[in-house]
Amino acid sequence: MNTRFYNAKILVTREDKSFEIREGELWVRGNTICYIGDGREGEAADAVSGIGEAEQALREASRRPDPRELGWDREIDAEGNLLMPGFKNAHTHSAMTFLRSSADDLPLQEWLYEQVFPREAQLKEEDSYWLTALANLEYLTSGITAQFDMYFFQDMVAKACVDMGFRVVQTSGLNNFGGTVKELEEKYLRLNNYHELSSYILGFHAEYTTSRELMEGVASLVQKYKAPMFVHNSETKRETDECRQRYGMSPTQLFDSMGMYDFGGGGYHCVWFDDADLDIFARRGLTAVTNPGSNAKLASGIAPVDEMRKRGINLAIGTDGPASNNCLDMFKEMFLVTSLAKLRAMDAAVMDANEVLYMATAGGAKGMGLPDCDCLAVGKKADLIMIDLKQPNMQPIRNITKNLVYSGSKQNVKLTMINGKILYEDQKFHVNLDTDEIYRKANEIVERIK
Amino acid sequence: MNTRFYNAKILVTREDKSFEIREGELWVRGNTICYIGDGREGEAADAVSGIGEAEQALREASRRPDPRELGWDREIDAEGNLLMPGFKNAHTHSAMTFLRSSADDLPLQEWLYEQVFPREAQLKEEDSYWLTALANLEYLTSGITAQFDMYFFQDMVAKACVDMGFRVVQTSGLNNFGGTVKELEEKYLRLNNYHELSSYILGFHAEYTTSRELMEGVASLVQKYKAPMFVHNSETKRETDECRQRYGMSPTQLFDSMGMYDFGGGGYHCVWFDDADLDIFARRGLTAVTNPGSNAKLASGIAPVDEMRKRGINLAIGTDGPASNNCLDMFKEMFLVTSLAKLRAMDAAVMDANEVLYMATAGGAKGMGLPDCDCLAVGKKADLIMIDLKQPNMQPIRNITKNLVYSGSKQNVKLTMINGKILYEDQKFHVNLDTDEIYRKANEIVERIK
Repeated sequence: MNTRFYNAKILVTREDKSFEIREGELWVRGNTICYIGDGREGEAADAVSGIGEAEQALREASRRPDPRELGWDREIDAEGNLLMPGFKNAHTHSAMTFLRSSADDLPLQEWLYEQVFPREAQLKEEDSYWLTALANLEYLTSGITAQFDMYFFQDMVAKACVDMGFRVVQTSGLNNFGGTVKELEEKYLRLNNYHELSSYILGFHAEYTTSRELMEGVASLVQKYKAPMFVHNSETKRETDECRQRYGMSPTQLFDSMGMYDFGGGGYHCVWFDDADLDIFARRGLTAVTNPGSNAKLASGIAPVDEMRKRGINLAIGTDGPASNNCLDMFKEMFLVTSLAKLRAMDAAVMDANEVLYMATAGGAKGMGLPDCDCLAVGKKADLIMIDLKQPNMQPIRNITKNLVYSGSKQNVKLTMINGKILYEDQKFHVNLDTDEIYRKANEIVERIK
Repeated sequence: MNTRFYNAKILVTREDKSFEIREGELWVRGNTICYIGDGREGEAADAVSGIGEAEQALREASRRPDPRELGWDREIDAEGNLLMPGFKNAHTHSAMTFLRSSADDLPLQEWLYEQVFPREAQLKEEDSYWLTALANLEYLTSGITAQFDMYFFQDMVAKACVDMGFRVVQTSGLNNFGGTVKELEEKYLRLNNYHELSSYILGFHAEYTTSRELMEGVASLVQKYKAPMFVHNSETKRETDECRQRYGMSPTQLFDSMGMYDFGGGGYHCVWFDDADLDIFARRGLTAVTNPGSNAKLASGIAPVDEMRKRGINLAIGTDGPASNNCLDMFKEMFLVTSLAKLRAMDAAVMDANEVLYMATAGGAKGMGLPDCDCLAVGKKADLIMIDLKQPNMQPIRNITKNLVYSGSKQNVKLTMINGKILYEDQKFHVNLDTDEIYRKANEIVERIK
């Protein structure tokens, strides 16, 4: 598929993490952005300064291709609307769609032990295919082009995503109740070599569910593959308190002391961090994935994202799973990131909207090991969305990036493209699976697992 | 316009503030719901138990009308989707759309005194027509069917709303910098008798902007008309601290001591309430309008809504104006009401989703003096919306009211009807004004008032 977008506003990510909006064309050859510019023949592309790229080399390579050689499958008049990088959902448990609205307004422990765990035990492998597919539909409506998933039946999860054309990074939920280090290693090798849309990062569930022996096994894989590692980290006060009782240190300090953070990675939630934890994340170049919707709904607390930002820690945003949140909407999460940070600091000036937009796009891509999907530039993967600016919540068009974070909504997502393919456009899905069948299967699973 | 909805799920509000979902038909005659039932001839209507209604009398009057006498202008197959009461936006400054994304991420005082006030001073009367119209479009996309507005040029605001078919309740922003008690009284009389879509409630801006003399004038009108009164109340800690310094009591206690709460009404924001304030609100039957998006973004604090609920205080939800929030989206506000209450209490069990849905519909209608618009029942005004359940965020359909509050989005709003007229359907507006012209005017105003 070769696609030409014209009459577009194009959100370009600068090296200093700020954004710039250019007007012109964006061309996609196969799964890659091959040109951004004004569309005139022979003109060098404008926007080649991808984050951390060798700009000059790209500039040479980015002269406008000959459209006759490309041959357009689609030419799309953007009508002045905005093209921007797709959002990266940096922490989720997608297949938990079957638990949506099943156990809300309950204390956390009761929610987890009486509602979630017993129902999860009844899941079958095929279920995760349909339940992940349902989440993927929702991601597409919210302009999310990649997910970082931790759940069961991970080959099925990969298959559902690849079948639909959705980009998925997975990590392991290994813990005392399921999984072995050997299986983790096998999945790490298998799912990193399954399909270009699938990748896998080492990890396990959390300190509070995992024995020291299992954690040492994970650490040995980290050392063997010199690979990053992600894990639930300091989601609740209770978790960190109990870890300190068991090990005399916080989860972050424990993982670091075991060598699990030697090659990067990071943590999900990262709510109850102390200074030493922040130091480790900064020094090791780790990524803190914040999950404000889940942390608020489950009353876990507010993560210190502004303190993290000040220390230069890479930040990303995740929806968490649909049983916790319950929706998979990056617009909601972006508003929560900045507004909860403001409430935490009691200062309306902290966490500027542009910082949040960077987290939701490039910050997530960095943490998820997707450096080719972080921004719109020549040579990058065509994981992009079109935002409808002709909706009342985007008007007046005074400051588009602030509009996106503070008043944006799923309703503004006009088109979602992953790896060069349009999977969602004008409220319609193009995902190889029938949406009615996905809904029917999900409801059947809910009926079966009461 | 007479409209028949069939194949619908219908959200019925019970006397005990809980909800029930029925399947069947809902018929609209003119601006009124005339039938809810299964559509069979001669059958008595099911859902006549409107809040506080004389059920038996209504049941008698609610037998299925003869469709041949009605004559349908539209028959709409709801395809199993949900009809529910429209949301009531119980506090806003609609025309502040011109300040959206103009001054975010700033401390509150700087935001107000350096960005908002100087620009507001440049507003012209006609501006408020177009800026209010822009807000109304956004309300329609979010399923909001009535707004409670406080802003300038209130005749223009009423005209914009009536021209578009939008229901508006206004109150005064009277303060030391503009307005007189005489003008307030004239507007109260005029805008309560302008059009069935327009009404007016006594009020003023806030204690911190208004002299004792002006407040005494408002109090005299309250006594003269035995009427409710609304005002910004305890939005920030500074506001309540300074009020205590000036008067030796909180804003609520001050207003009550002056007789302004003798006939009901309430306050916007209500964040920094103490026990005595809660007692007054409970004893007087006042309405606390919470504005969580604005309170979070401006770092004002988290209102004690769960404490209010426990005392039986009527609760409503407002978006506040688009310069504070910045979007006018009841789905976002509903999620924030419950999740911020959970964070405040550090307890995931407080503020059940159903309580929040009641606040956003019937609670708002009660505070706004719209008892005929609070729920779907025979004899009520046809202010209703249709929610698309065939979107991934509404699946599986296990618990619809929880889905609405926790994972609902503007994207789910398939149709918005006010006073029996469909103003928004399948992403299209039917509001007598051209949306492109509204956008153009709003952008021109922004250009003029830099």
